[in-house]
Amino acid sequence: MTMPMERIRATYLLDVDQGAAESRARSLAVEQSVEMPLEAIADRHVLEEVAARVESIRPREGRFEVVLGIAPSTTGNEASQLLNMLFGNCSLQPEVELVDVSFPPGYERAFPGPRFGIQGIREIVRARGRALTCSALKPQGSSVAHLAELAGTLARAGIDVVKDDHGLADQAAQPFAERVPAVQRAIDEANRATGGATIYAPTFSGGPRALETQARIARECGVKMALAAPMLLGVPAFVQMRAELDVPVMAHPAFGGAARIAPPLLLGTLFRLFGADATIFPNHGGRFSYSRATCMEIAAAARRPWPGVKAVLPVPAGGMTVERVPEMLEGYGSDAMLLIGGGLLVARERLLERAREFVAAVRR
Amino acid sequence: MTMPMERIRATYLLDVDQGAAESRARSLAVEQSVEMPLEAIADRHVLEEVAARVESIRPREGRFEVVLGIAPSTTGNEASQLLNMLFGNCSLQPEVELVDVSFPPGYERAFPGPRFGIQGIREIVRARGRALTCSALKPQGSSVAHLAELAGTLARAGIDVVKDDHGLADQAAQPFAERVPAVQRAIDEANRATGGATIYAPTFSGGPRALETQARIARECGVKMALAAPMLLGVPAFVQMRAELDVPVMAHPAFGGAARIAPPLLLGTLFRLFGADATIFPNHGGRFSYSRATCMEIAAAARRPWPGVKAVLPVPAGGMTVERVPEMLEGYGSDAMLLIGGGLLVARERLLERAREFVAAVRR
Repeated sequence: MTMPMERIRATYLLDVDQGAAESRARSLAVEQSVEMPLEAIADRHVLEEVAARVESIRPREGRFEVVLGIAPSTTGNEASQLLNMLFGNCSLQPEVELVDVSFPPGYERAFPGPRFGIQGIREIVRARGRALTCSALKPQGSSVAHLAELAGTLARAGIDVVKDDHGLADQAAQPFAERVPAVQRAIDEANRATGGATIYAPTFSGGPRALETQARIARECGVKMALAAPMLLGVPAFVQMRAELDVPVMAHPAFGGAARIAPPLLLGTLFRLFGADATIFPNHGGRFSYSRATCMEIAAAARRPWPGVKAVLPVPAGGMTVERVPEMLEGYGSDAMLLIGGGLLVARERLLERAREFVAAVRR
Repeated sequence: MTMPMERIRATYLLDVDQGAAESRARSLAVEQSVEMPLEAIADRHVLEEVAARVESIRPREGRFEVVLGIAPSTTGNEASQLLNMLFGNCSLQPEVELVDVSFPPGYERAFPGPRFGIQGIREIVRARGRALTCSALKPQGSSVAHLAELAGTLARAGIDVVKDDHGLADQAAQPFAERVPAVQRAIDEANRATGGATIYAPTFSGGPRALETQARIARECGVKMALAAPMLLGVPAFVQMRAELDVPVMAHPAFGGAARIAPPLLLGTLFRLFGADATIFPNHGGRFSYSRATCMEIAAAARRPWPGVKAVLPVPAGGMTVERVPEMLEGYGSDAMLLIGGGLLVARERLLERAREFVAAVRR
């Protein structure tokens, strides 16, 4: 038997009465590891090296912060089983929130992590020392020709990344196999005309076999980025897709919930471990209710030093406008990509001009 | 262009003030379909046939019940995109809860649905006119020999389904490739000795390629059921696995959340559409806080008539004991499978006797 690795430290907030905190913490440790009464376990190795431990309990903002020490061996060094041990059964207990996780050194080696990270994306779009710009192709139901035309306009304006709306999947109105080559062609033509380096990030969706087909189509037409929602695809399918794609992957937060896993942990730390190169999140003051502090913590989790794991590009989005660019740059700094979708498209026939204003505001 | 299909009706509860309900409902319809300002959309077809519609708004228990009509075409008839349209972005809005969905006739044909359902499982374990019994192999970290011995004991007691604990994945202590053949062998031997028909449901976990390997191993050693957590695997990977396995699949609720998608919808209706043959859920009065009414609604959603979609076996679980069997049978009736895991294993050397009491209580 090898020396047991240091524990994974998972921090939860429990909404329980003071008198119940200690026993509730102990039952959480059982739930998230051996899932049976400890008195029914005869094997000392299981009790000492497999069962999770309560490492600390303290009051925090009207709840109790409990840190569990989870044995890395129980996660099988695999993404779905890691989520299972962190938040599988206790996701069904509404008084439990998962707020933070720290991994022992070396644990990350079993996971892909970002392959490109912030620097890799900067090189592809040739953006040094400034924030990046991003816009979205919408709405679903549009013809492929319309989407390609939009993409060409945004690329001519100098937007760095043109992404599919996350609602563009593989529907009959705009099948992946027709849409993606047409949009990529429009962007290539614009780049040739302007000397720019705009890239396109189409939405990958569906089952494992569909993802493989989409990867082949994207490779054949020279797509340089991918967009995917890890919580919709399933994290293990996302990890496998990420490991096999040779372009940066931008994670979309759809289906990621808001309430029970802290957003900086899910959209920052965990999506980073699972291999996102850029991570989209709802910016404060838009259509979503995340606070400014939460958004700053997501960006911090995406970029903080983590030996062996590249920094992820934070992508604040969701109801943003060109007018908010200066304030967003002040908040996020230049290692970020600003995403404005509908806020540009409302300009309709003035889209090129409006997109140029966006690009200029970020480059200023 | 073909005639548009009837809409998918998705029911949400919005926690908003009365004055805001109508505009909030309209913005939800935009968020869950075209995701851009309607005034920026020129295409009449998109406005009329693609954008979601607010079909009704009414006060309900201190919140507002909003029914959206979602165009089936936007879901691409695919599981991840269906979840995206139902609850992708609005999962990030804490004031929104998804409580029910009804599908237009024929929509289910794009999905696998349960292949065996209640009747198919009954035939495999030869159980007519009575509830089924289930127990679990635990704890993780045990040796394969110990797990196989437990399985043999439970099978000799006449338990219908012996499942892996959902924490048994493919870890070093009990790799799938060693554990599953050993456990299946122990069960086969017990069946030969007793003339019984106990089946084993091992946990399928990991990425798409891992799932394929596990399916091959399970097939080779004659496994007759599979256990999988759709929310950990990812729903599209679950659907693909389900479509390719020729044994019943039991869904585990891990990582399914408790608060923002109503449990009867997720664990009942949606897991059924996605192809589960049996669905595990936390019974009231155990380690989880679901109410009795919620549990009855989950069972109802699993079994209610749905043309073209087989009934799913409800599997109440989570801290159950033999003493509660009569009350559970009264609540769920005989088209159910009772799952007692730790509550049997605490008997340790008296496990065979205790498991026999469980079997007898259900057959009584």
